[in-house]
Amino acid sequence: MYILTLNCGSSSIKGKLFSLPSKEARLEAVAKITVLSIGASGDRVHVVVKWLDSRTDDVDEIMGDGGEVEHRHIFPVILKHILASGIEEDAVKYITHRIVHGGMNKRSLRVTTEDSHELEQMAALSRFAPLHNHHAVLCVRACLESVPNSTQLLYFDTLFHQTLPPEAYTYALPPSNVPLTIPLRKYGFHGLSYSSIVHQLGQHTNTSPEALNLVVAHLGSGASACCIRAGKSIDTTMGLTPLEGLVGGTRTGNIDPTAILHHTPDYAADAGLHGMSVTRGEWVMNRESGLAALAGTPNFGTITAKVFGVVGLNGAKDEAEKARMRLAYDVFLDRVMGFVTQYIAKLLAQVPLRSVQLVFSGGIGENSAHLRRDVLGRLSWLGATVSDANETRRGGAVRRISANDSRLAAWVVETDEEGWCAQMAREDMGI
Amino acid sequence: MYILTLNCGSSSIKGKLFSLPSKEARLEAVAKITVLSIGASGDRVHVVVKWLDSRTDDVDEIMGDGGEVEHRHIFPVILKHILASGIEEDAVKYITHRIVHGGMNKRSLRVTTEDSHELEQMAALSRFAPLHNHHAVLCVRACLESVPNSTQLLYFDTLFHQTLPPEAYTYALPPSNVPLTIPLRKYGFHGLSYSSIVHQLGQHTNTSPEALNLVVAHLGSGASACCIRAGKSIDTTMGLTPLEGLVGGTRTGNIDPTAILHHTPDYAADAGLHGMSVTRGEWVMNRESGLAALAGTPNFGTITAKVFGVVGLNGAKDEAEKARMRLAYDVFLDRVMGFVTQYIAKLLAQVPLRSVQLVFSGGIGENSAHLRRDVLGRLSWLGATVSDANETRRGGAVRRISANDSRLAAWVVETDEEGWCAQMAREDMGI
Repeated sequence: MYILTLNCGSSSIKGKLFSLPSKEARLEAVAKITVLSIGASGDRVHVVVKWLDSRTDDVDEIMGDGGEVEHRHIFPVILKHILASGIEEDAVKYITHRIVHGGMNKRSLRVTTEDSHELEQMAALSRFAPLHNHHAVLCVRACLESVPNSTQLLYFDTLFHQTLPPEAYTYALPPSNVPLTIPLRKYGFHGLSYSSIVHQLGQHTNTSPEALNLVVAHLGSGASACCIRAGKSIDTTMGLTPLEGLVGGTRTGNIDPTAILHHTPDYAADAGLHGMSVTRGEWVMNRESGLAALAGTPNFGTITAKVFGVVGLNGAKDEAEKARMRLAYDVFLDRVMGFVTQYIAKLLAQVPLRSVQLVFSGGIGENSAHLRRDVLGRLSWLGATVSDANETRRGGAVRRISANDSRLAAWVVETDEEGWCAQMAREDMGI
Repeated sequence: MYILTLNCGSSSIKGKLFSLPSKEARLEAVAKITVLSIGASGDRVHVVVKWLDSRTDDVDEIMGDGGEVEHRHIFPVILKHILASGIEEDAVKYITHRIVHGGMNKRSLRVTTEDSHELEQMAALSRFAPLHNHHAVLCVRACLESVPNSTQLLYFDTLFHQTLPPEAYTYALPPSNVPLTIPLRKYGFHGLSYSSIVHQLGQHTNTSPEALNLVVAHLGSGASACCIRAGKSIDTTMGLTPLEGLVGGTRTGNIDPTAILHHTPDYAADAGLHGMSVTRGEWVMNRESGLAALAGTPNFGTITAKVFGVVGLNGAKDEAEKARMRLAYDVFLDRVMGFVTQYIAKLLAQVPLRSVQLVFSGGIGENSAHLRRDVLGRLSWLGATVSDANETRRGGAVRRISANDSRLAAWVVETDEEGWCAQMAREDMGI
């Protein structure tokens, strides 16, 4: 039996295929799927399937121009390559989908060819995560059409944050005069990542989730932080949508909510995206801001190379570029520190320091030793110390970077949203 | 010689008259002026002048319906009562004005009958503080007309925050495609209050401002916090406008910047305010949100009475009302803790704990012992302890509330924006 885990974004599809030979067996990832440049006119859409167990040759099929290839065209191609490896269609029993916004849903959803009515509800939520939910729903439909006997399992990034207390999720807004699809409150995102991190760190340290008090910085192109008390989310940075909170690769994070009125006077106009209702203001704040706006690139690795490299040699091309990159780095670090420190303080109001741990994750959190050092350096008053040996040691999805005598334990945990979804599918379906 | 200090809001004018007999004398407040209900149809506008030195009877003149009395009608009435006390018009040499938004101005402005061109620039900034700057400019013009020989001194709430470092004031927004009156960045407000607090605490503890590292919570109907390093602002919660940051009496503070799109679908429509360009969205977030939206009242004293009083006796009328009040209190406290703790951490990354002090100010900060105790209780891990004796001791504009052995010193400082403006006027004019 196989479980396919998919993560559909507006321009990409990422996935993993897991094999599960028996109820007692361990999940084994057998293939990694990557599709990029969907919707990008001028770029070609590649469907890449990398077989991790070398059962057959890797695939890199070019499907055509990104402006013409739609989400529904892609899944049949992915399926074709899975079947070409010798896997039978009936063996692909479960397909999981990471869905960014789950609204007030308190559990995952199951969708089959016979019963797909809940998909409509997901489509209605697209207004709150227009660049994500919409495409994920398209993806679910495509899977149902291509593998009609499979069960689609929808896992929401909002589920982990159901435990937020009212004082954390409530916005000080009056009741709205219009009917609302969902209450206007903080939902929080990256929940599959936070779940995976709690699970992995618990296993690694042989600790039950109820004994974990964590501040997790999930820093990637989308960046958020979460305050976790006894394994449960008690505060997080993202809000009604993923825009709120930290600066992202292309997101503003928190700014004066009226700033966009002055920046983009036609902020309420439609952004003109195919099939989606997105305003100019939402587009600018979600897709044209963040590190990309400050540094000219959303890529944090490029930014740190130019900040910490030698000007003219392997760093920035001149001092002006370096200053621009430095500002982007400093703004990012400043916002991360703001949330990390207030979440540490929130935990310390309830539990002692020795039971609090700091976790870095996501592309930036896992890869930028510069950022981690700067964060921990600013926490030395708490007794946080970094171990050079620990920081540079490679390998392992969970590794401790703080020194052994650090009063605050700090970790890098490689998040594994796909593995977590496959794991959940096993539990939910009893397989 | 007299200095009149005025603070003109959209519906109120507050002021103090100071006498300055000689260059060596101390400033002495001789009258307090209060005008309320301007613009409020159905309420009557009262001009109240209270003489602090009992030179003549107090005045309470009713000017008519709030919907009909304009700012320019009021100043001649205030002046009439000042002159009626025996003060000559020529003795009112300087009139200071608190102006909320100073844009990029790096110093106060002087406006006289002969030279009033800078007023135009202030009017242009009204777009960024529509409920404040506009009326302050009307007030300056009215003063120039009534006392043509006086010098108007404009003090900006933004001036104190000129020292914000770029990583604190920069928004991760791309360049705008339209010409902007001022750069879109964090400016910060309540600067006259923060200046006054630094000055007062420095005098009280016989410490130079350069030795003061403070986290100040200025909590009133407008609420903000400021991180002060060596007497200078290095971070603050309010932003491009006073909306950003903490929850206020009627302000949302930080929320997902896209939340208003869903809350008020006609958010970009004009709010229909006389002579001001304010959108529905700005109006809702600035005037219909905050504590008022959560509790039904913007009054924090009412909220704490209902939360901490006995239901049905002197507290809330029933459990439902108490729960609503409790949520408002908890949300306010949660946001205050978030900024207070991150600012303390920002200071502790640079200086030792013994040199950091926490200050409560503003109507709520000065009056709510409940809130102060809850804040300090959540800081006990830092070694903060409250002294019952100190908390309940009355009197003095500066009083220490932490216990003598508290590792974090905590104070209540009664802010004195008027006194600070008068003080500045003396220094600026060499009087």
